[in-house]
Amino acid sequence: MYSLMSSPSISSSSSSFLGQTHFDSRNPNACLPTKDSWICKCVATPSTETTAHTTKVSRNANMAKLQAGYLFPEIARRRSAHMLKYPDAQVISLGIGDTTEPIPEVITSGMAKKAHALSTLEGYSGYGAEQGEKVMFGSNVTMAVQDPSYPAYVDLSVILGQTGQFQKDVEKYGNIEYMKCNPENGFFPDLSTVSRTDIIFFCSPYNPTGNAATREQLTRLVQFAKDNGSILVYDSGYAMYISDDSPRSIFEIPGAKEVAIEVSSFSKYAGFTGVRLGWTVVPKELLYSDGFPVAKDFNRIECTTFNAASNISQASGLACLSPEGLEAMHKLVGFYKENTNIIMETFTSLGFSVYGGKNAPYVWVHFPGQSSWDVFSEILEKTHVVTTPGSGFGPAGDGFIRVCAFSHRGNVLEACKRFKRLYK
Amino acid sequence: MYSLMSSPSISSSSSSFLGQTHFDSRNPNACLPTKDSWICKCVATPSTETTAHTTKVSRNANMAKLQAGYLFPEIARRRSAHMLKYPDAQVISLGIGDTTEPIPEVITSGMAKKAHALSTLEGYSGYGAEQGEKVMFGSNVTMAVQDPSYPAYVDLSVILGQTGQFQKDVEKYGNIEYMKCNPENGFFPDLSTVSRTDIIFFCSPYNPTGNAATREQLTRLVQFAKDNGSILVYDSGYAMYISDDSPRSIFEIPGAKEVAIEVSSFSKYAGFTGVRLGWTVVPKELLYSDGFPVAKDFNRIECTTFNAASNISQASGLACLSPEGLEAMHKLVGFYKENTNIIMETFTSLGFSVYGGKNAPYVWVHFPGQSSWDVFSEILEKTHVVTTPGSGFGPAGDGFIRVCAFSHRGNVLEACKRFKRLYK
Repeated sequence: MYSLMSSPSISSSSSSFLGQTHFDSRNPNACLPTKDSWICKCVATPSTETTAHTTKVSRNANMAKLQAGYLFPEIARRRSAHMLKYPDAQVISLGIGDTTEPIPEVITSGMAKKAHALSTLEGYSGYGAEQGEKVMFGSNVTMAVQDPSYPAYVDLSVILGQTGQFQKDVEKYGNIEYMKCNPENGFFPDLSTVSRTDIIFFCSPYNPTGNAATREQLTRLVQFAKDNGSILVYDSGYAMYISDDSPRSIFEIPGAKEVAIEVSSFSKYAGFTGVRLGWTVVPKELLYSDGFPVAKDFNRIECTTFNAASNISQASGLACLSPEGLEAMHKLVGFYKENTNIIMETFTSLGFSVYGGKNAPYVWVHFPGQSSWDVFSEILEKTHVVTTPGSGFGPAGDGFIRVCAFSHRGNVLEACKRFKRLYK
Repeated sequence: MYSLMSSPSISSSSSSFLGQTHFDSRNPNACLPTKDSWICKCVATPSTETTAHTTKVSRNANMAKLQAGYLFPEIARRRSAHMLKYPDAQVISLGIGDTTEPIPEVITSGMAKKAHALSTLEGYSGYGAEQGEKVMFGSNVTMAVQDPSYPAYVDLSVILGQTGQFQKDVEKYGNIEYMKCNPENGFFPDLSTVSRTDIIFFCSPYNPTGNAATREQLTRLVQFAKDNGSILVYDSGYAMYISDDSPRSIFEIPGAKEVAIEVSSFSKYAGFTGVRLGWTVVPKELLYSDGFPVAKDFNRIECTTFNAASNISQASGLACLSPEGLEAMHKLVGFYKENTNIIMETFTSLGFSVYGGKNAPYVWVHFPGQSSWDVFSEILEKTHVVTTPGSGFGPAGDGFIRVCAFSHRGNVLEACKRFKRLYK
């Protein structure tokens, strides 16, 4: 809803808690939302009964292309249905990759300090440095994704009009290059079979398979992007989970600055999935075909549409970067990596082919010849554990489930006990 | 940069303080930014020397359409040049509408409480309710704006490819309906001369002129949108500044729910320009031409691309909505309205035609026959006060300057003293 972005005074909607305005013009607060009626209700479940009036504005055809139900809401629906069916079941969620452990105190006190400072003359600050995200490449670019990959990459491209229709038979959108990643190719695409695209989304360590690309593989990827004149959008959001010597950043690869943008965040390092703070590195060496610096357009869009992350979030980000903050983040990451090991060992001991885990908080379990959704449903039905069906990440993910290590230790141990009971 | 939005772990870039990653693969933090090199430098002033490699990705043609320098960065550049010229001048900024007074303590303690809670098991929360903004309407819609109006409305439409080229002679983009607002029409467009568009951006109280539309005018606007099958995007971000009985919300107008979306924020009510928290109301009654609810696509985009405002910002939003929070916001708004009156009285006493002010923190001063930028430059040169040239908001703004009331009282009084010296 770009009218939102286009207002200087708004950077983010918060309609999940801010209610409908009410309309008493004699009330000086009539412009303010009340807490008793929730816009999120109307947003989440809009009435479909037709009213007297329809506008003449046609719906964005790209929205109609999207397949029903974004993956995680769909899983949430099935989870709710399951809980209705088994009201007494102790359901454990190892599905959506949401962190569960508290944010280290050294980081939250940085937040709180900034919060208090904002009510002092000295500590108050208004608009921050302008910065942001959004629609830089436009709709005329082509894109490639790992298959399977995090669904939002594809859905965003669909919304931005970069893709064709969804082709039910192959479970793919037209005009997207799906780079198959499976055990046969070590979860790294065979680049000799990949067509040239403008943008290549690449995530490493890699959600959902948990695999991290090696230095040699990333060197080939950078060369591939360079040969094709492509821009690599590299998501390193799980880099702190790497145990071996896989690169933590695409910019460890010589020449990457001429072909790559890197995005990452504190979400999986410091439990910031709710605090919402990340960063983007756009090297000045990255140029469009006409020689214009990508960073310059990036900055222009930031200034125009976004206007910075919350100053409170930024203060907590600085706390993350303090020596104590870094140490606390490593401890937190270490805890989730122990969870990962427990899940890995469980499925390995049960004779499954298990992938990932080593460099990421995700375990990718193979169920050859079975449908991911069938496996998901059987596990939910028989163990009351929510996982994520691999096919939700792309056609090449079918036959796999993703088991997520973001959970309290007790839940992980209990879930693994149930897995052993089911598959022993 | 939609790769950013498309990552689940990132909702906002923070590159103004998060530095370039460094590339020592033996360092487990190599994936993390350091504080000694600043990406914002490279983003803000990208190198233009050509490097060995250019990608084959063509630049988004819509970006090239944008006119150089977004208004406020341009003003900042001129301000800096002025300070170089007069290093000892005490420069006062009444330009950009950034709040200056601290956030009420009752609100920041709500923030701090949430921050501390996040480091406890009970108080921790991860992903919030999914919600957001972005590119819902696509590039095939037509739009209308008030002329003058806040520049981001137009710039966003340009970036989204909804407009034609910039026409230097008339200072307008092609394919945008500019709804002229001037003293002759009481700063409300003559709708009989306005062509039908899909989207109508309308801000009231109205930045930059400070004018609030009356109930009768808004009733006509809603009817106009209904007759044309248009969607009204109504920005009520200054509604708390209204002193008379002008509507605080478009939804005070019968039938508005079938044609309007309303956006607003706490920025100008609680000094949240840096905290970044706003809301959007998308009525379930609002339907595309095919009868599909707009709210449903809005929600889908939110779930896919945005994933909520920072939980800290949301906690502070709840504090704003408490009785004490509302009272504190009214007090803060009252302070800025006193500033506004001081500025109004000053220019009135100097014989200028002065508009706005009554229902908004902006004073719109008329300098008939003069160029806004000339007036801006003369005021800066002779009084060291930064204002905003009206023509920066659209061609109909030429001959006006906007004087902003967001400043400490002492600065407002000093600036007005200087205005009197200049224009007595």
